[in-house]
This record gives sequence, C-alpha cells and structure tokens, in this order.
Amino acid sequence: MRRKLNFGEIISCMFYKTKRILLAVAASFIVVTSQAQSVKSDSTVIRQIFQEALTKGKSYENLRYLCTQIGPRLSGSEGAAKAVAYTKQVMEGYGFDRVYLQDVMVPHWVRGDKEKAAIISKKSNVSVPIRALGGSVGTGKKALSAGVIEVKTFEELKALGREKVQGKIVFFNRPMNPAYIETFQAYSAAVNQRSSGAVEAARLGAVGAIVRSMNLFLDDFPHTGGLRYDESVTKIPAAAISTNGAELLSQQLKENPALQFEFKMNPQTLPDAPSHNVIGEIRGSEHPEEIIVVGGHLDSWDLAQGAHDDGTGCMQAIEVLRLMKVLNIKPKRTIRAVMYMNEENGVRGGRQYAEQALAKKEKHIAALESDAGGFTPRGFGIEASPTIVNQISKWQYLLAPFGLNDIGEGHAGTDIGPLKNDNIALIGLKPDSQRYFEIHHAATDTFDRVNRRELELGGASMAALIYLIDKYGL
Amino acid sequence: MRRKLNFGEIISCMFYKTKRILLAVAASFIVVTSQAQSVKSDSTVIRQIFQEALTKGKSYENLRYLCTQIGPRLSGSEGAAKAVAYTKQVMEGYGFDRVYLQDVMVPHWVRGDKEKAAIISKKSNVSVPIRALGGSVGTGKKALSAGVIEVKTFEELKALGREKVQGKIVFFNRPMNPAYIETFQAYSAAVNQRSSGAVEAARLGAVGAIVRSMNLFLDDFPHTGGLRYDESVTKIPAAAISTNGAELLSQQLKENPALQFEFKMNPQTLPDAPSHNVIGEIRGSEHPEEIIVVGGHLDSWDLAQGAHDDGTGCMQAIEVLRLMKVLNIKPKRTIRAVMYMNEENGVRGGRQYAEQALAKKEKHIAALESDAGGFTPRGFGIEASPTIVNQISKWQYLLAPFGLNDIGEGHAGTDIGPLKNDNIALIGLKPDSQRYFEIHHAATDTFDRVNRRELELGGASMAALIYLIDKYGL
Repeated sequence: MRRKLNFGEIISCMFYKTKRILLAVAASFIVVTSQAQSVKSDSTVIRQIFQEALTKGKSYENLRYLCTQIGPRLSGSEGAAKAVAYTKQVMEGYGFDRVYLQDVMVPHWVRGDKEKAAIISKKSNVSVPIRALGGSVGTGKKALSAGVIEVKTFEELKALGREKVQGKIVFFNRPMNPAYIETFQAYSAAVNQRSSGAVEAARLGAVGAIVRSMNLFLDDFPHTGGLRYDESVTKIPAAAISTNGAELLSQQLKENPALQFEFKMNPQTLPDAPSHNVIGEIRGSEHPEEIIVVGGHLDSWDLAQGAHDDGTGCMQAIEVLRLMKVLNIKPKRTIRAVMYMNEENGVRGGRQYAEQALAKKEKHIAALESDAGGFTPRGFGIEASPTIVNQISKWQYLLAPFGLNDIGEGHAGTDIGPLKNDNIALIGLKPDSQRYFEIHHAATDTFDRVNRRELELGGASMAALIYLIDKYGL
Repeated sequence: MRRKLNFGEIISCMFYKTKRILLAVAASFIVVTSQAQSVKSDSTVIRQIFQEALTKGKSYENLRYLCTQIGPRLSGSEGAAKAVAYTKQVMEGYGFDRVYLQDVMVPHWVRGDKEKAAIISKKSNVSVPIRALGGSVGTGKKALSAGVIEVKTFEELKALGREKVQGKIVFFNRPMNPAYIETFQAYSAAVNQRSSGAVEAARLGAVGAIVRSMNLFLDDFPHTGGLRYDESVTKIPAAAISTNGAELLSQQLKENPALQFEFKMNPQTLPDAPSHNVIGEIRGSEHPEEIIVVGGHLDSWDLAQGAHDDGTGCMQAIEVLRLMKVLNIKPKRTIRAVMYMNEENGVRGGRQYAEQALAKKEKHIAALESDAGGFTPRGFGIEASPTIVNQISKWQYLLAPFGLNDIGEGHAGTDIGPLKNDNIALIGLKPDSQRYFEIHHAATDTFDRVNRRELELGGASMAALIYLIDKYGL
C-alpha cells in the first residue's frame, strides 16, 4: 500500500506542521494545568495515558526480561520464585507507595525427565510429540502400551461402555470449532476433554488418556494444561498430543484399529510448596480504604516462557500503576497491582488474596484482570450487576477512539473470581483472540510472539479504565 | 489462562450438546430454505459466510502459493507475469462466469545488482543496510561518497539553505510518530520524506538522499517504496536505511559531523512494459449492468513476497466471489474481483480500469479494496457522499458480531481512487494496523507473518459487506 503519494503528501506536510503547533499548545496546556488536574478533560488524560504507553511504555522490556531471563515459572519452581523476586524489584524501582509479598502454599507438580514422543507404530517407526497434562500421574517405570479408542465426546465414550474401553487408551479428538469468531468460545466447548477426559476414561476402565491439543491450528506442538482427578476413580496418566499428531493417529487408527500406542512419562506431585502473590499499590488520596485491583498471573506452564499466558498480564498490571505515577494521576482510591501465583493449576493465589481481603475487611470496588494474551485490545468483559455493567459501558465513547468498542458482559478472570460479591465489578481485558490458541500452554508461547505496540496498548487500555473507575466510582 | 475449569466444564458440556442440537436444526433449515433464499435473514447469510471462510476458506492456501512459489512481483517483472497467470487460473478453476485480462502498460524499474550496504566509517568498518527507493537513479559506475546533513523536516532543510546542503547527502530522519493509535496516520505524517525527499534535497544541490525507513519498530530491514522526481530538478540517487541504521548514523554524526557516507547502487528504469489487470466476475441476475468491484493489487515490491502488501487483498477479493458461489448467493448485480497491476509505482492498473469503465459507460455503484494488510478486520473506511456513508454505517449492527465496529468515513484505496464520482461508494477494508509497519515494503513481508484466521476473517468481512450492498443497493 502506498496511499496518497501525490495529494496526500501535501496534506501530510500541512498535517505535520499543524501537529507541531497543536503539540506546542498542548504542552503549554499541560504546564498550566499541572497544578489543577481536575481541569483536564477525561479524554485529555486518556490520550496522555496512551501516548506515554506507546512512546515510553515499559511493559515490553519488562516482559522481555521475565520471558528470556527467567522463562517458565510453574508454581513451586525456581522460575516462579525468581519471578516473584523480579516483579517485586521492578515495582520497588518505580517507587510505588507499598510493595509486598502475600504468602500462599501452592501445588508442586514436576514433569520429570522421561517424557518422550509417543510411538504409534513400532513397525513403521511412526512417533508423535506428546506432553503430560499438568497434574497427571506417570506411566510407572515402564512405558504404557495399549490399544486405542478414539472418541469425540463423553457421550460417545459412555455409549461404548466398559467392555470396549477397559484396558485401552482413550484418545479424545474433538477439535476446537474454528467457526467461532471469539476463539475462547471454541476453547470452552472443547476443554472438558483435557480437564476431565482422564477421569471419564478411567471410570470405564481405561489405562490412559490422550487428548488432542487445544489449538486452532495444525502444528507439531502439544499444548499442556491442567487436568482434574476424582479421588473415587483410578488416576490414569494423561497427555496432550499435537494437532498434527492427532490427525495422524486418527488416520492410522482407520487403517489399523488394533494399533498399539506407547508412551512413557514420570511426572510427580511433590508436597505443597511456599510461594507468594506479589502486590504493589498506590495509596488513595481521598478514599484509601476503597481498593481497585488490577492484575495477571505470575505462574506459567513449564513448556515455554509464558509470554502471552500470562507474562503480558503481569507486566500490564505493573504498567497501569507506573503510568498513573509518571503522569501524576493521583488516584482517590487505592490502586493495587497483583501478580497472582498458581492460576494454572490451583488458583491458590487468587483464593488467598480474596480470603485475606475478607479477613481484613477490605472494600474492593473493582478487579481487572488481563489473562487473554497481549494482543490488540478490543474491549472489556464485565461480571457485575446490570447497573454496574451499564455504568462501565457508558464510558465507551471515551474508550472507542482507542479501539475499545467491545464493552459489556463477559468473562472477567480466573484469579479475580474469588472476589465476587454483589457490589464488585470483575472485569477482564478483551484482546483480539485470533492468535491466542496457536501458542496457549505450548512451547510456542515465547516473547518473540508479542508485539510491542499491541502489548502497550493493552496496558494503556487498562489504565484508562482504572482511571475512570477511580474518578467516578461504581 | 485456564478459564472455568470446574463450573465451566459443566457449562461447556451442556453448551456442546445444545450446539449440536442447534446445528441439526440449522442444517434442516438450510435444506428447507435452499430454494427460497430470500427467506434467510441477513444475519443467517452473514453467519454462513464467516463459517465457510473460517472452516473451508481458500485465501490462505492461495496466498501461500502466490508468496512462496511466485514471490516478488514488481510491475514488469517475471513474478508479476506469473502472478497474472496464476490468479487468472485460480478464478477460472472456481468457475466464475467470466475471467479475463485487461491490458495495461506499466513502468519497469529494476534494482540492479550492485546495491550494497552503505559504509558509514571506513576507518572503524561500520556499515548499515540500505535499499534503493523505487524509481531511484543509480550512483553511476562508482560509489557515491559525501558528507551528510541530517534533517527531520523539509522546513529544516530549507532553513539550512544551499550553502550547507550543496554537495552533501541529505539524511531524512524523522521517525514515524508512535503515539498514533492508527499507524497509517503515522505513515501519512512521515512518508513525504521518502516520496519527495530526493527532490527537495536536489533543489538545494544535494548529491544523494538517505531516508529513515517507514517502520514503527527498530530493526535492520530497509523499507523501500516509491519516490517521485521532478523533471525540472536533477535526479539524485535515494535509498532507505533501516531504523537501526538511522539511529546509528545519527549517533555517529553527533560524534563526527564530517563523516563520509558511501553507497553504491545501479537501478535502471527500462521502457514501459505490457502487463494486465486480472478480472473475474459473477454476472448479476437482475441488474447485470450495475457493477460492484472488490479488489487488491497484484504487484509488490521486489524485496519480499508481498504477503500483506498486497497478496492478502488479492486472495481476499477472489475469496469474496468464491464464498458467494459456494454458498449459492446469487447476486442481483455483477460482482467483480479485480487484481490491479502497478499500485506501488504508478497506479496504472487502477487508472486503466477506471478509464475502461468510463469508455464502456459501465455503472459502478461500489468499489471495495483491501490494501492495509491481512490482519484481523476492524471495520471499513468509506469515501462517499454523507448519505451513502450513513447508509453503510447503518449495517453496523449486522457486522459488529464479527468484530466490525469501526465503520465510517476514511481512506478507501489507491487503486479504486480513479473510479471516484458523486454516486459511487469507495470503501477500504480496515484491519488492525499495529503490525503493518513492521513489514511494509521490507524483506519481512512474508507469508509466515500472515495468520490464517485473521486473513480469512478479512475476506469474509468483505463478502458480508458486498452481500449487503448488492441486496439493498446504495
């Protein structure tokens, strides 16, 4: 695209000059009003937030460190401990009013070192990449080898019955439905295979479960993620298979329904380990007892750097407070950035935060979470009373110029869920969702998949909304 | 992000079952109404368009061929000729009512083989990547070596005057302004350096021009693009320097204002060459004489595969017609997909198309172009009378469920510009713009930077709008 090479050139010249004049005017305006902040219009403040984020934002460089120098940080791991120390240090460096850790005991699951590609056919040497699902038991000292039953739904599995399932590995192969515009809907409609497949299979006597990765694209990366066992049902080993691997396995089963699938893994669940939520806050000037929380989760799956899930959310939460501080926005209420620990396999951090808030009788008026990737922000999903949803939606005219058109009821966030009550607004940043399930919980969730502008726009969007909530209340 | 592992699981199970029932109902509905298309609501048709594109869309695989098997296709090149033959063949394969070529003579500029990295300092062996701007003359047999004057604006250049500029290489180093939310605004405000820098520098006796790449990110890739000479001013060689290179050169100039910059290049402007617009159409069933055009440009700069600029637009235009055909949407008016030739350095294809339309007294009611990248679609920019803009904007309620919230006045497209009159709607697809100026006109504009879902959503968005324009007229 070339766009207006002739006429546009003249325009852009004029535009550039006009802009310089406008900037000069704006600069003097800032000087005049710096002692009288209330004079500034909301649109001026929001414009400044976005300008600062896009020109001098820090979340991208902070994320680079978290991803490339610390990397994976599953609860209980050394990476998680380093991430706690790092984010505390970053917030202290920005001079927030208070930065502290909140103790929390977390599950401690480790993958082990025996995990190997699964063998589909020994004869023709066909193998595919798999990865244990988070929380899975191992296969024992030997590899697990058994026949395979492919199903798409739990109903189909139940219809097969114990006779056909006993002693088999159940292969759950219902793809995410690509027809959804919002990819999280496709995830919601497919993820029960991963979270409950092992239990449902074991109920009928299966010896293992293989789950097609929660991925909207065909590639070779297994996507892990949490599973749940039922204490009344035998725990069987369960692993994710890449989408290409799932296609191949399905094809091979058509050719040879009696094929033997073989895989080995030795994950372990260790005793619960001590860890922390990391909290930074700017104290409110008028109502310090009223709290607005903004956050993401600090833990991440062990296969990658946890860039989009959820390094971005943590760095954006810190950025919200930094933007307010550097732009001299003095909130009436206390604004807290919380890096929750253990979203991925327990939500212990989110629960602990809510329990402590209750114990201390803290009044939270809103909680905002960013945990859907660091992509271009499109709006906010809100879980609250219709009155509150309506009130937030009314600010859309202030936010739409920044691409935030999609504001209304919707999923907020897993970590802030435990804070739910009748008066609080739980809010989730809603970024563009198209690329998320290419990298989610897989080795591909790395820093190089994050675009600087998209990430900084997300932090600015969160800061703009927090600014409005703080100024007008809910 | 894990999202609703416990409660949500139950919900998603129920949801999945409900969805199956709904799909079954929908399927029977389609059968019943297939002979009575008018019974279908607009939202049903639009939903089907998106569903087909997301589940069985062809533009991604067609783009893969164009990018990886043909690649660069600057006007007059062998690649351009192959792209003409390929797109004609693809449209013939889909069985459109008519597929044909429209002759057009195009400029034929070739880069030459002597282009090398520019040397900033021979002593300390510092060199930086540069690429000739499209249309530039060469440096002659020898390299060009001269002192450098750095400026940010044409005003600054003029203030320096002939005395300080004569015999020098002018280095235009005004960065794109990152504070704009829409990156095309930043491009418009910076691109005069590339298009007119050489002329403005030569007016004051400069011997060469170096232009900071139109890139919002810091990297090592020069971004080329068209320049314009003025026949009354000496033609001096002009090249793009990478953004990292520009930063380095600026720094070195601070340390040594007398440094000698040396570069060599031997591009040539050959005689105009014969080429073609490629046109496919579905004939209208009620008003075949009324034409709605959808298109992109087939030519691309020679440094890369021309994926986002503008292979995506071409493949989306073809997809619009394919979607209509496969979904049995029989348009009242004639729908034409046009792959314009020579947008990048002449707009000869766009002009020729408009001239031929005028000569044949064809009535065009709307022209839609996709030439802003194959990213997630956000809306449409419209150049038309307020009445028409208003009419199209009223369809937003049908398009918003698919993420198309940004519909209103805006830039449409360079190739369709020559069609402008009082009655036509010129429309541009408006995708998310954050990533475009990382790859625009640079070696990084490759197929692997395109996301399948984002691309197919764009084609579906175009098809939905064309469906509405055809059904209701303008």
